[in-house]
Amino acid sequence: MATGTYAFGASVMTVEATQQSTDRLLHSLEQAFGSDVIITDPDITVGYERDESRFTHSHRPSAVVAPQTRDQVVACMELAHEFGVTVVPRGAGSGLSGAANGRGDSVTLSLHRMNRITAIDPGNRTVVVEPGVVTADLRAAVAEAGLYYPPDPGSVDFCTIGGNIATNAGGMCCVKYGVTADFVLGLEIVLADGRVLRTGRRTVKGVAGYDLTRLFVGSEGTLGVVTEATLRLVPRPCPAQTLVASFPSLESAGVAVSGIVERGFTPSMLEILDRTTIRAVDDLTKMGLGTDVEALILAQSDDPDATDVLAGIEKICVAAGATDVVASDDPAEGSMLLEARRMALPALERLGDWLLDDVCVPRTQIADLISSIQEIADRTKLTIGVFGHAGDGNLHPTIIYDEKDTESKQSALNAFDEITSRALELGGTVTGEHGVGHLKKRWLAEEQGPVGMDVHRAVRQALDPNGTLSPSVLFESEEQ
Amino acid sequence: MATGTYAFGASVMTVEATQQSTDRLLHSLEQAFGSDVIITDPDITVGYERDESRFTHSHRPSAVVAPQTRDQVVACMELAHEFGVTVVPRGAGSGLSGAANGRGDSVTLSLHRMNRITAIDPGNRTVVVEPGVVTADLRAAVAEAGLYYPPDPGSVDFCTIGGNIATNAGGMCCVKYGVTADFVLGLEIVLADGRVLRTGRRTVKGVAGYDLTRLFVGSEGTLGVVTEATLRLVPRPCPAQTLVASFPSLESAGVAVSGIVERGFTPSMLEILDRTTIRAVDDLTKMGLGTDVEALILAQSDDPDATDVLAGIEKICVAAGATDVVASDDPAEGSMLLEARRMALPALERLGDWLLDDVCVPRTQIADLISSIQEIADRTKLTIGVFGHAGDGNLHPTIIYDEKDTESKQSALNAFDEITSRALELGGTVTGEHGVGHLKKRWLAEEQGPVGMDVHRAVRQALDPNGTLSPSVLFESEEQ
Repeated sequence: MATGTYAFGASVMTVEATQQSTDRLLHSLEQAFGSDVIITDPDITVGYERDESRFTHSHRPSAVVAPQTRDQVVACMELAHEFGVTVVPRGAGSGLSGAANGRGDSVTLSLHRMNRITAIDPGNRTVVVEPGVVTADLRAAVAEAGLYYPPDPGSVDFCTIGGNIATNAGGMCCVKYGVTADFVLGLEIVLADGRVLRTGRRTVKGVAGYDLTRLFVGSEGTLGVVTEATLRLVPRPCPAQTLVASFPSLESAGVAVSGIVERGFTPSMLEILDRTTIRAVDDLTKMGLGTDVEALILAQSDDPDATDVLAGIEKICVAAGATDVVASDDPAEGSMLLEARRMALPALERLGDWLLDDVCVPRTQIADLISSIQEIADRTKLTIGVFGHAGDGNLHPTIIYDEKDTESKQSALNAFDEITSRALELGGTVTGEHGVGHLKKRWLAEEQGPVGMDVHRAVRQALDPNGTLSPSVLFESEEQ
Repeated sequence: MATGTYAFGASVMTVEATQQSTDRLLHSLEQAFGSDVIITDPDITVGYERDESRFTHSHRPSAVVAPQTRDQVVACMELAHEFGVTVVPRGAGSGLSGAANGRGDSVTLSLHRMNRITAIDPGNRTVVVEPGVVTADLRAAVAEAGLYYPPDPGSVDFCTIGGNIATNAGGMCCVKYGVTADFVLGLEIVLADGRVLRTGRRTVKGVAGYDLTRLFVGSEGTLGVVTEATLRLVPRPCPAQTLVASFPSLESAGVAVSGIVERGFTPSMLEILDRTTIRAVDDLTKMGLGTDVEALILAQSDDPDATDVLAGIEKICVAAGATDVVASDDPAEGSMLLEARRMALPALERLGDWLLDDVCVPRTQIADLISSIQEIADRTKLTIGVFGHAGDGNLHPTIIYDEKDTESKQSALNAFDEITSRALELGGTVTGEHGVGHLKKRWLAEEQGPVGMDVHRAVRQALDPNGTLSPSVLFESEEQ
């Protein structure tokens, strides 16, 4: 008696049959590795139902498997493959698009216990890690060896490197250093059928075969499970110097960002806050950011000539019309200057329920995008704060709505779609760093087009023909 | 009456049937686009038989198709797909592993006439190019706009960007700037069946879907034909300052390279020459490099604080035992200091026929690798000069042999295999920047292992199920 079906490709199974298969998988794992590898207590598995996204489909997973070794991951995937059980890999659950959300018919494979830093090699500037290492812990460990791992997603203190790899996470450093993918030299991957694949290499260069490493980075758990990563590190930079500039109009801030890029400056951070975000931060912190400020730009440089870099950026800001520019080479003062950026999301969160978008446009289009978003906010009477990584064109419009009000919810969703659509129109992408997950499957199809999606499906089919891994992620299917 | 067969996957065809299919393809292309799109004169097509590699299988192609537009590429691939004709895409033919070598049953698709630079966008630091643009021309064009395209393969003056993308070409800049792949934001690809795929984006960040761009970069013509690329540019750097250091032993040079990396310096060039190369250069140029010099290190910095960077590198070199260090902030003098590096290959070429290897090891293993190579040279009585990109661990051992002497040829091949094997043992890769092509198919399989090759085949099968594109490249098959 089937009460529901999930479909991906050729695999269709009733809920009851799925439960039996899952039970067999769990039983086999328990026999082999003991009971602490599996979690079935619904009070605990409910904690694995969702990540931090909104408006995404989720369900308490049928069970959680929490391996401590690669061999346990292999066993899990071999059994899942054999018994036809679908598996959702999960890092820290801090994602914002639903890729780690549970499914009622799926086992969630949580990698949090595989959290060893295996080797730091200063001579080759590499580190080998397991997927469950918290990103901040990794950064701290390599810093002790005089090295620097740049990627710094907002969730850096609790997200894990496996999740960062799965979403190709970004952060504020990217304007100078690049994204997670730029630091992954090689991966150990457990494939959907349990085979172990080693991609990439320990060397900084190499062109032997297809770039499978990059194929897995950002694949959101749909192609394989990362069980080890070899990461590239960079020399520890100089202490960052900081600058904050206030602008009387969005346009002038946009001119400043374009000017900074065009004049060849490479700050290590270049962020923007719009007026809605500034007001929210001011309400919360009483920082006195100014009621006539329409945009704030925050920049840092960690170059040896940071003072010159910031002086150059200051000139550009002033020429663009900045009404106030404050700079500091003192790290403590710099940290205070960044307070407005740090408080952006907490300040907006206070205003109601929030839906965080993540779009990226060519850098010259930032002012256009923000101005479109303000127009959408005015028209829909929604509060939409915009902040983000101006230096990359990667913005996070944050829509405030009322979860209990159906009309407000729908209005928020409409605005979300309008913003994403506008980003595409401006030559941008539907996600700069948060990923597609469940949240943006329709938009992925929109951005990629039919040939792009066909190629995506062909690649997915080549690596996971049964659709074992994360079957609700990336691809639109019949059921959701 | 078949006089030979080529096989890939399910496609097997006799030579005569292939010729008929090719004739139909050529006829259709001529009907649609005129006769100047196709070249069948054997005196001309013979020029498309080989690239610059040695010891690789090649044959005059059955015809050359030289499109001027994407639509002509689409037509060619659609017809090839329909009639079962295999196609070998080709850039400038400057490759060193045979990937562009002709096949007697294949049409060579030469992209050299698609050589427009479509758009330079200084505000977003991007450029859009067709594949036939010569890399040096691209660098010159963006320099006029105050921008810099770093990748600088040795063949920069005549190779094309399409070929660079197909092999993921490197060069001397990589130690600071990275390889070709690091500058490709998006691609327009004509797939094996003629469908047009757009990968990537114009923005500097983006995670919507699989990283198909990177999958095509370095795929050596086996997955699709690049018809347009959107490339990332960087600000024009400061004029480079140069340093040359002489070492009395290989070990001391190795210590210097490791020290430079470990101490956090990021020169824009860090090259090494071994004693055999130094002697050859000295014989040719009479530069007086010193008969007791066992290794030369050449470094550049184009940072704003280049003087400090080179002073730091000089200290490390001296501490490691360098007997002579010369530095200059004068570009003309710097260029003279680099003469030894520039003349490395020409000097070795004078000694006989040459087989150029391309291996990459973790940077700390460079001295070990070179010392192993010197042992191989001593034992086999071959002259093997080593030079290359020390900062990346990417070396080009160059074996001198006599093409007319069977024993010498075999000896060279054996040494080539020994060197490649040693690089793998040291944790390295079988090719750092030249690619697999025909030359290193066996070694690709060795490096990737069975699961890696299975995944490679699955990806290839997903994108080109009939094996239309470059069927002799990357994958070992029965016939060669």
